[in-house]
Amino acid sequence: MKVERSVQNPIILPDNVKASRDDFEVHYVMNCGVTRFEGDVLLLLRVAETPINNDPNVALAPYFNEESGKVEVKSFDKNDERIKFDDPRFIEAPWDRILTTISHLRVARSKDGINFEVEDSPAMYPANKYEEFGIEDPRITKLGDTYYINYSSCASIGVTTCLATTKDFKNFERKGVIFTPDNKDVAIFPKKINNKYVALCRPASAEYKKREIWISESSDLVGWGNHKQLVSVNETEWDNGRIGCSAVPFLTEKGWVEIYHAADENDRYCLGALIMDKDDPTKILAKSSKPIMEPTASYEKWGFYGPVIFLCGCLVEDNTVKLYYGAADTSVCYAEIKLDDIYSELNYY
Amino acid sequence: MKVERSVQNPIILPDNVKASRDDFEVHYVMNCGVTRFEGDVLLLLRVAETPINNDPNVALAPYFNEESGKVEVKSFDKNDERIKFDDPRFIEAPWDRILTTISHLRVARSKDGINFEVEDSPAMYPANKYEEFGIEDPRITKLGDTYYINYSSCASIGVTTCLATTKDFKNFERKGVIFTPDNKDVAIFPKKINNKYVALCRPASAEYKKREIWISESSDLVGWGNHKQLVSVNETEWDNGRIGCSAVPFLTEKGWVEIYHAADENDRYCLGALIMDKDDPTKILAKSSKPIMEPTASYEKWGFYGPVIFLCGCLVEDNTVKLYYGAADTSVCYAEIKLDDIYSELNYY
Repeated sequence: MKVERSVQNPIILPDNVKASRDDFEVHYVMNCGVTRFEGDVLLLLRVAETPINNDPNVALAPYFNEESGKVEVKSFDKNDERIKFDDPRFIEAPWDRILTTISHLRVARSKDGINFEVEDSPAMYPANKYEEFGIEDPRITKLGDTYYINYSSCASIGVTTCLATTKDFKNFERKGVIFTPDNKDVAIFPKKINNKYVALCRPASAEYKKREIWISESSDLVGWGNHKQLVSVNETEWDNGRIGCSAVPFLTEKGWVEIYHAADENDRYCLGALIMDKDDPTKILAKSSKPIMEPTASYEKWGFYGPVIFLCGCLVEDNTVKLYYGAADTSVCYAEIKLDDIYSELNYY
Repeated sequence: MKVERSVQNPIILPDNVKASRDDFEVHYVMNCGVTRFEGDVLLLLRVAETPINNDPNVALAPYFNEESGKVEVKSFDKNDERIKFDDPRFIEAPWDRILTTISHLRVARSKDGINFEVEDSPAMYPANKYEEFGIEDPRITKLGDTYYINYSSCASIGVTTCLATTKDFKNFERKGVIFTPDNKDVAIFPKKINNKYVALCRPASAEYKKREIWISESSDLVGWGNHKQLVSVNETEWDNGRIGCSAVPFLTEKGWVEIYHAADENDRYCLGALIMDKDDPTKILAKSSKPIMEPTASYEKWGFYGPVIFLCGCLVEDNTVKLYYGAADTSVCYAEIKLDDIYSELNYY
């Protein structure tokens, strides 16, 4: 697969993003929704922050406190042997499990699609108990003149997917939880099919440890049902750990194309592609047997958490898939793949 | 709490139920939906079967095979040390995790509410990949002239809740999966509230190990959204393990009454009660601080899996709550509690 990475990668680094408050620092910026807005390329970035910490004996963890209505900070004793600090993403105490960072969503805009201006303030910030540990990995779907944004909400009561709408990327209206715990990596199709809205989602089975792609339908974008399991993990491949939808699906003459992500048992995240039937997206017409893109660049292999490529959206222009992706859970990068190159590497059923 | 158990308990035993096929035996009969139908008390029983097994060296496990369209049997070598047989409900091999029984739904009817005639054939039988390991724990909600039946579907792709409808308890129409994995213990309210259907559900968070009661709404009974976490487990009580809805909520002058179940960390299942606001059931007005019913009778303590009381439905007649419940995952039992007795033991907020 011919993947053209931008020579300017990473195109957005944590240093390019202003912290939301003086006592926090931006730890990483990554998985972003993408759309065209007023002619610009608009990214809705996931910005992850940590409290500034000058004490080597404690670990600090941010969270939204429903009672105070504010993001506050918990402190954990690094010398307490009951507490696990080995995964950089979590602190696990017998009485608590908390993320080390809290994410919010931030708008960035660009004329040329490479050089971005990042807004100084958050677009959406954790604001309720479902968003206790932050809001993550937004997808943007335009329906009519409204942009529907779904994002993962992390909380001790579970990981849900929430919906919000905007028309101007300044004012956002929350529409509540659309998928019960745990369910994330949701992407809403940009067009009704057979008079129903359709979305891909990725429920996690607590009992059976499965993390796979499902497909759901809705008559009003709030209530989702008729859920069907769509794509399984493989037992012996690059996608044998978990598999989930990434980009918002886009319609081509071959059907609905989905650029998805999958991880192996070592949590190495790659991208794959599949094609769903135009009129019945529960039918898979073609699918990658190997990744269309793997974390091979240094900025994809090393960072806060790598090797990882993670995508939440793409633009499709001039038969080119323009990928704005998170690299090693640290930065935003850009790459292009020709649609024909994707087509030629799929297995057709 | 004054609980009047029937002196005829258990009112339905596995021996009272004919196996669905010659090579299977009924292992237990339990958690049943309940409604009035044509003047009778109608129970929709969960009947769990195992393959008849005369070989002490193997364990047999039934499952619906999507390719053949039939329930088939897998065999596991009891001398294989890699396989775990210690939980009577599961067989866990490194390559497989399967239930030891497969459940279907069966109709039983009674004139007096105690002596039941159990039909000879299943009402609903596992029939698709979501139902691979059986269908369980039905709730019946009457809306208009249609009975809506939701049930837990167990499969290696996850535990979902599915919906079916019937008007005659002979013909059942499947409406698909209404909640993504893992989500079970769903009960649909028997009346629209503010022009929306409402249901309680119990998602399981794989990440945060929570199993709690949520509340969801729908405009068409198929698509469910605006999910809200409703009732938490306690840290130090009889309900510190998991908590889920049990009976279909019923409306009284005090609001919507829900008889729910909770288990402590040792999986001892009891019943509690709570009252939700009539017009806004996301508001809890009152709740049990201790169980309204505990597994104290011998048939509730000892059986396939105990001590367990598990309820999927009740009738409310003459200010009496008539409980048809599963006892020790083995039999169906009957008890009555006066509504006033429940009221007097709740904590009001």
